[in-house]
Amino acid sequence: MHTHSALSDEEAARLDAHWRALNYLSACQLYLRANPLLREPLRAEHVKPRLLGHWGSSPGLGLVYTHLNRVVREHGTEALCVWGPGHGAPAVLSGVWLEGTFGEYDPDRARDAEGMLRLFRDFSQPGGLPSHTAPDVPGSIQEGGELGYALAHAYGAAFDNPDLLVCAVIGDGEAETGPLAASWHSNKFLDPVYDGAVLPVLHLNGYKIANPSVPARLPEDELDSLLRGYGYDPLHVTAEPDTPPAETHRSLAGAFDTALERIALYQREARARDGSGGVQHRPRWPMLVLRTPKGWTGPRYVSGKPVEDTWRSHQVPLTGVTEDADRLRQLEEWLRSYRPEELFDGDGRPSADVLACVPEGDRRLGAVAHANGGRLVRELPLPPLERYAVQLKTPGGSSHEPTRVLGGLLTELFEATAERRDFRMVGPDETASNHLDAVFSATARGWQGSTLGTDEDLGPHGRVLEVLSEHMCQGWLEGYVLTGRHGLFASYEAFAHIVASMAGQHVKWLQSARDVPWRQPLASLNYLLTSHAWRQDHNGFSHQDPGFIDHILNKSPEVVRVYLPPDANTLLCVADHVLRTRDTVNVVVAGKQQCFDWLGLEEARGHCARGLGVWEWAGTEVGGREPDVVLACAGDVPTQETLAAASLLREHLPQLAVRVVNVVDVARLMPRTEHPHGLPDAEFDAVFTRDRPVVFAYHGYPWLVHRLAYRRAVHDSLHVRGYKEMGATTTPFDMVVRNDMDRYRLVMDVIDRTPGLGAEAIGLRQRMEDVRTRHHAWVREHGTDLPEVSEWRWPGA
Amino acid sequence: MHTHSALSDEEAARLDAHWRALNYLSACQLYLRANPLLREPLRAEHVKPRLLGHWGSSPGLGLVYTHLNRVVREHGTEALCVWGPGHGAPAVLSGVWLEGTFGEYDPDRARDAEGMLRLFRDFSQPGGLPSHTAPDVPGSIQEGGELGYALAHAYGAAFDNPDLLVCAVIGDGEAETGPLAASWHSNKFLDPVYDGAVLPVLHLNGYKIANPSVPARLPEDELDSLLRGYGYDPLHVTAEPDTPPAETHRSLAGAFDTALERIALYQREARARDGSGGVQHRPRWPMLVLRTPKGWTGPRYVSGKPVEDTWRSHQVPLTGVTEDADRLRQLEEWLRSYRPEELFDGDGRPSADVLACVPEGDRRLGAVAHANGGRLVRELPLPPLERYAVQLKTPGGSSHEPTRVLGGLLTELFEATAERRDFRMVGPDETASNHLDAVFSATARGWQGSTLGTDEDLGPHGRVLEVLSEHMCQGWLEGYVLTGRHGLFASYEAFAHIVASMAGQHVKWLQSARDVPWRQPLASLNYLLTSHAWRQDHNGFSHQDPGFIDHILNKSPEVVRVYLPPDANTLLCVADHVLRTRDTVNVVVAGKQQCFDWLGLEEARGHCARGLGVWEWAGTEVGGREPDVVLACAGDVPTQETLAAASLLREHLPQLAVRVVNVVDVARLMPRTEHPHGLPDAEFDAVFTRDRPVVFAYHGYPWLVHRLAYRRAVHDSLHVRGYKEMGATTTPFDMVVRNDMDRYRLVMDVIDRTPGLGAEAIGLRQRMEDVRTRHHAWVREHGTDLPEVSEWRWPGA
Repeated sequence: MHTHSALSDEEAARLDAHWRALNYLSACQLYLRANPLLREPLRAEHVKPRLLGHWGSSPGLGLVYTHLNRVVREHGTEALCVWGPGHGAPAVLSGVWLEGTFGEYDPDRARDAEGMLRLFRDFSQPGGLPSHTAPDVPGSIQEGGELGYALAHAYGAAFDNPDLLVCAVIGDGEAETGPLAASWHSNKFLDPVYDGAVLPVLHLNGYKIANPSVPARLPEDELDSLLRGYGYDPLHVTAEPDTPPAETHRSLAGAFDTALERIALYQREARARDGSGGVQHRPRWPMLVLRTPKGWTGPRYVSGKPVEDTWRSHQVPLTGVTEDADRLRQLEEWLRSYRPEELFDGDGRPSADVLACVPEGDRRLGAVAHANGGRLVRELPLPPLERYAVQLKTPGGSSHEPTRVLGGLLTELFEATAERRDFRMVGPDETASNHLDAVFSATARGWQGSTLGTDEDLGPHGRVLEVLSEHMCQGWLEGYVLTGRHGLFASYEAFAHIVASMAGQHVKWLQSARDVPWRQPLASLNYLLTSHAWRQDHNGFSHQDPGFIDHILNKSPEVVRVYLPPDANTLLCVADHVLRTRDTVNVVVAGKQQCFDWLGLEEARGHCARGLGVWEWAGTEVGGREPDVVLACAGDVPTQETLAAASLLREHLPQLAVRVVNVVDVARLMPRTEHPHGLPDAEFDAVFTRDRPVVFAYHGYPWLVHRLAYRRAVHDSLHVRGYKEMGATTTPFDMVVRNDMDRYRLVMDVIDRTPGLGAEAIGLRQRMEDVRTRHHAWVREHGTDLPEVSEWRWPGA
Repeated sequence: MHTHSALSDEEAARLDAHWRALNYLSACQLYLRANPLLREPLRAEHVKPRLLGHWGSSPGLGLVYTHLNRVVREHGTEALCVWGPGHGAPAVLSGVWLEGTFGEYDPDRARDAEGMLRLFRDFSQPGGLPSHTAPDVPGSIQEGGELGYALAHAYGAAFDNPDLLVCAVIGDGEAETGPLAASWHSNKFLDPVYDGAVLPVLHLNGYKIANPSVPARLPEDELDSLLRGYGYDPLHVTAEPDTPPAETHRSLAGAFDTALERIALYQREARARDGSGGVQHRPRWPMLVLRTPKGWTGPRYVSGKPVEDTWRSHQVPLTGVTEDADRLRQLEEWLRSYRPEELFDGDGRPSADVLACVPEGDRRLGAVAHANGGRLVRELPLPPLERYAVQLKTPGGSSHEPTRVLGGLLTELFEATAERRDFRMVGPDETASNHLDAVFSATARGWQGSTLGTDEDLGPHGRVLEVLSEHMCQGWLEGYVLTGRHGLFASYEAFAHIVASMAGQHVKWLQSARDVPWRQPLASLNYLLTSHAWRQDHNGFSHQDPGFIDHILNKSPEVVRVYLPPDANTLLCVADHVLRTRDTVNVVVAGKQQCFDWLGLEEARGHCARGLGVWEWAGTEVGGREPDVVLACAGDVPTQETLAAASLLREHLPQLAVRVVNVVDVARLMPRTEHPHGLPDAEFDAVFTRDRPVVFAYHGYPWLVHRLAYRRAVHDSLHVRGYKEMGATTTPFDMVVRNDMDRYRLVMDVIDRTPGLGAEAIGLRQRMEDVRTRHHAWVREHGTDLPEVSEWRWPGA
């Protein structure tokens, strides 16, 4: 399948020295708290009291680390590695310590005996180093605890980085996950001209945790067929427990060389064809299938049971070493089998042989700038909003599709980044459905597959990525922003839940990275959730779920932001803002359907900057005294129903002083102590009052507002309406009626909560009930909304 | 690849009549509100005012419906079909109407002109039929709105149904998703002896929404290689717009016959080998790749633009028909192209030719019992809990691993269902890690792959399914319970989020099914979330997320239940309960680590039945008067910290009357109006008081308790501690300290909220602060918890 590399014996020995050093350092991280160089016989007190960590995949990851080093040095490649099996962190920590980057980031981890011991002691210890490839680990862009995303992250990193090689190590367990299974097809979206290369290394050591893995137990021809079906040209390298190390080094070096030569060839060809206007075809990119024994080079048997090459080596392969002299001896033999005295001098400094394969400077895997994307990120050239803002004559006097208006801004952003290529949109084939298709005048949907004459807006260099896998969209975008670029994920609101766990992990990454001084701030991860719960007229209940907001707001407040712009201009302002932020996860929920324009651009700017505020023009307050009631709203549909309720009250109960409050930045509702965007109590009370009835129409689950505002003075007077799972295939107005958030219900709520309004109010309440009854009959008979609802306009508009 | 079936011309014509009838009925569902049989010329007023629905995949789904009918009739097979593209509901609705099942379930949908018109009018209309294959649709076990789960559902349905054929239609869009990509490998878990067969039909019509799909644009050899790599033997059937229908019917009938013959052969061989003790091997199961034009037989061009066989036929292919006479004429021509007058008599009854392929009785796809699993479900033979309960000497006088205790009960359940085979466990390779491995004495891990001598607990007929894909676990279990069986999904707590969206969709299914009178109650979907947030000593932050509870509690209260048993016996009682319930989604969170035993079996039974209650033995109340303070807790770790705090208060502030309340059934906290398990206010107040300080230690995000209890009298005195994303790789006690839920902090909270306790309390508070300070230093130095914490016991235990 490929030829062995012409490694000399000396070269093979030097690679092996590096690998042995990694294995030694990895094993010691699990066990030692003293005697790091084994200059004295191993005693129980040298061993940690609690043994924590994962040995199983570490030797294999170390092997990849060693050989990637060689490749970078030999080929002059700039490489980033995504370590899928995050459990194998000991190998990666060993690699970055050995190459010196760890010590440069953190003087406590210098490349000497003291730094080595510190590495051992801190691993998997409270206040020390995590047991996974977390942000603390130089060169890492993924944690690898929640498996499935390594390959998507790798492709995300490779997009628009034409000179970068991204190696993605995929373990047995991860290979079984859905997101990973889909991500193989990312090669249909990788442009050989403007993107870099991804080199997947499917690292099979046979087991996930306690079970064999599916891919490891496939007949080799079946696995080969699968990977070819995924569009790759696999190079197989297999090592058994007894394979001589030099043989493995030769095979693996040969496979890497072959892969890199092919990648270089395909890129050269594609770039030449592109320069001469030729037709592109999708290369069959190489990949490696690396089979090594689980826990390789570790204890072969423990108490008569096989450990190496079995699931028993997954975590700590040899336990009870402090209580059992035989086991302590076995541990010492194991550690000495790496011959540490050949690898390190008396001060713990690695020998020249060990370091022979290690690249220099920023080419070291722990130092590559792309793995610390904040070093590379640039401000986006965002256009002036004036170019796209809707001209407002009177509030509610016109209507637009907010996402379509935003599409204009995004189009110019794509144009302005045509050379820089540092902005992308991802989505599950919904750019057009979400009314953002203007962008296709500036860039295509990236596509390396075959095309037909009837296709539209497909192109090999396009920067909109559409695949019906929210996991791939999310993984790509994470990889893209983690390596210093910008992007936007536009999705149906309900289906954002598909990536809730991924989003949570990204928040955790950003939160942890805040404590790592050398990590530079990244562009934020931005969601535009549209086609939302209230407008699923023909998709119904399964497409109705506003709970992604709740999920995000459970996470670290330093990182999470939620915006509910009520119209086109506020959406523009919010989009402009989130695309400038750093190190946050921003969730923007906005409609794609016709929506009244409420604010001019300047008002929208001020309103969004404040995050919430009184819409004086919409209320009937008399200056100088508190209102009788507050109508609050957040979200486009709730805002429309609230303003309709306000207009009904203005007409029928003109003596009632109504204040209308709109909330864009949901975290403003929280106390300042719980979220950096939280409004101080005095300001909050000035807007919501301390004791007036507040009828709040909210886009999502109503209890979220209670949970955010439960410490506010006004909380006991707060009455929230929102989505409560009363979904169906039905009309827009029927949806708000079913969930008791319609204008008529809001008016009834106001009347019910404002004592002493008298007979007039009682009559109005009855009329509201009557309209709702009429609605029920009408929608069943006509399948449309009541004409008075469809034709409603804000007074004077 | 396979031979054409020897269909006679008459047989092909009859199949075509059925298919044309389906297409006619499907198209009419999108358009007509009158003139159902086109007995008069089509006029604008016959057309619906709002055109909603999806045409694109309907003709292809109809083709599968027709041919499955034939297969069932010819082969005498019992078949269930999982319709992946839920958008194609018109075809399925047409099929069940045509076979008469719809009319039997609902007399309004009888097989005559009136029932036909009702079908047309109700489709995608408010109060009518949903636009997806929702619970309203006979024969459906999945909604198909959120794509990705068809194949996993199909395998779930096939497990332990040896005589059932489950056909799974997978569309272009779904084929791109991660869960579907992984689910192909379900064949490594399908036992040819005790399970039925799954026949995947990859239905490629070229596009997802507005884009070509990845699988549709693969070169055929690449797709073939992919599917062979997945372990299937694909049979390809391709139709172009101009392919004569009879040719397609012959190819497809031939492919189905070939597939069914091979399935029968493989099952026969495997079952014979099993009977004679022979070695099993995994068959290369057949599957179909069916390529048909999108929107086939619909308008070829509209206003000069190609529609048939393009993405333009995804939804309504011909719009504006009521305003444009040409388009109205085009619609009429299209509908008449199916020759309805040949298909239906004057009363709308299908002709004999149309019905020739339709099976009889319960073999009809809409009538098959497995698709209405409640018809088949039986009570589980649950053993008496006495056999597994922990013997309690004194509260806290012993400790057990709760999940290990549960493992005993589950083992007996597996034994008791060995013949019935209607109980399964699924999980991502964590049965052993979650300390449930006792079950392997009763059943193996199901596994059809190759095995090695070092493997343990693998077997071809095992009923524990372990795959590192939460999506597959969830999809299998859903398919299994939807077809009338029982199961348990045991997972790491944090990674339940991976299937949050799937769980939400299952809740929606159950909620909708409540309104469908002919759907019988199903066994509940049960989660055991263990390896929870508080005990991730060596996995750290990425493995800490208790938010699945929050997600579930956002959903329909009729369906969702959350239980937090604090010890082994309460876990037994909760497990026993949830395994007996119907039509709910039960989330049980319980630890796998050593945990004090607090309640004997009888106390546990009473406590779990009440859902929450006062632990009088733990408090220092004086009978007859209200306590000074309430210490409440929910979850095993919070319970331990709360009891430790209670013991500190008992020792150091004995004059303080402390009440200890434990909550097992979280929904008890909600008002009765918001959840059927909600405790009436009077009972709630009797437990929590109306105004005493309540310090509540909660397993998850603390604000959830506020959201559940915000209407309770005591709410303003409620102070909740819980997980607030202060995660790390650290010791168990450091986790509670970081999140301010430790015993010392709880004592401080009590003191801070109970005025007038005097100098003694101030001194105690300072000592609590001091221990926390000492803890910080200790854990960093030793990597273990303070001895006084590790050695703590309940007084007298």
